[in-house]
Amino acid sequence: MGSDSPFLLAGVSLLSALHMGYLAQRVGRSRMTHKVLPPCVTGPPEFERTFRAHQNCVEFYPLFLVTMWTCGMFFSEETAAAGGLVYMIARQIYFTGYVRSSKKRLPGFYLTLAVFAALSLLASFGILRGVGHHYFHIHL
Amino acid sequence: MGSDSPFLLAGVSLLSALHMGYLAQRVGRSRMTHKVLPPCVTGPPEFERTFRAHQNCVEFYPLFLVTMWTCGMFFSEETAAAGGLVYMIARQIYFTGYVRSSKKRLPGFYLTLAVFAALSLLASFGILRGVGHHYFHIHL
Amino acid sequence: MGSDSPFLLAGVSLLSALHMGYLAQRVGRSRMTHKVLPPCVTGPPEFERTFRAHQNCVEFYPLFLVTMWTCGMFFSEETAAAGGLVYMIARQIYFTGYVRSSKKRLPGFYLTLAVFAALSLLASFGILRGVGHHYFHIHL
Repeated sequence: MGSDSPFLLAGVSLLSALHMGYLAQRVGRSRMTHKVLPPCVTGPPEFERTFRAHQNCVEFYPLFLVTMWTCGMFFSEETAAAGGLVYMIARQIYFTGYVRSSKKRLPGFYLTLAVFAALSLLASFGILRGVGHHYFHIHL
Repeated sequence: MGSDSPFLLAGVSLLSALHMGYLAQRVGRSRMTHKVLPPCVTGPPEFERTFRAHQNCVEFYPLFLVTMWTCGMFFSEETAAAGGLVYMIARQIYFTGYVRSSKKRLPGFYLTLAVFAALSLLASFGILRGVGHHYFHIHL
Repeated sequence: MGSDSPFLLAGVSLLSALHMGYLAQRVGRSRMTHKVLPPCVTGPPEFERTFRAHQNCVEFYPLFLVTMWTCGMFFSEETAAAGGLVYMIARQIYFTGYVRSSKKRLPGFYLTLAVFAALSLLASFGILRGVGHHYFHIHL
């Protein structure tokens, strides 16, 4: 690998994958606590909230990877990596809140959406600038 | 970033991530319309179809990213990006159809499979050509 | 594409995407065998185990891609690609076992976790070495 490799994006991606593994483990522990045996996914409300909190993180994870990497490759690696760290914190707040009550999932969820909005906007700007430069010789 | 960066693949990936976000929002709106409160995922048939339509898109999304990027990196970026746009249209037809009735999910689903088949075949050809070139000095 | 392109990682990624497509097809066939019509996801125990086995593979798939690619880009492409092949075998053992009984999912699941642990550790080492080299001029 050259010295210009995206170490920060790779590092944050790996950390986020480990974080997702940790959340999966939390669902496993909740199964034991509430005696919900696989393949069953219904049970006491706290288990169901824990299960759905993880599912929501699973649904959004590839979207996060796409927006962080496009932002990092076409706008700024440092900004994207910082956004990725905030995303992980947002998901942790969301998960912990959702386990307690459905309503407490909202602050973490809004922070998640804010990170997506920021990463997507910066990535769009970077890609459009690149396309303009490469295909239309417009220099911003 | 160099001027040979995969702008088209990045652009279509970002668009597809935003499209997935839009489909997630459709599930959220369906929750409100049918009064299905999180973490519950069962309810009136239309809600359940909307929920499953989104889940199917979630299940296939990483497969789409892998096939589009390998096709784009090892066969042709323009072809892969065009395939990616058709994929998004296919998923939208699938989702809209599935919300109406289970049977109406099929045309969009078959188009989805066709895009997967095309992207996978071209990607396989490109990778095998590259491996032959790089490891066995076979030039096609 | 240059001749130093990650053909092995791309090839294993494409194979793993096709494998995931095969597992999705197994769920579809199980729907037909057990007469569980979409969007329904509950039914006879064997169907529910098949459905959950696939869902678990879906949940872990992006984590697999992140750990394999970071290991491959920052530690060793050959090692990561070999790990990726073992991962696919582990998931197949898991899936086949889970379809038979909930308990039989465990050997494949533990092998899956072992591959994750190995890929993550090697990727972490590679990224930290790269960061040390690039940002702090430490050469290992």
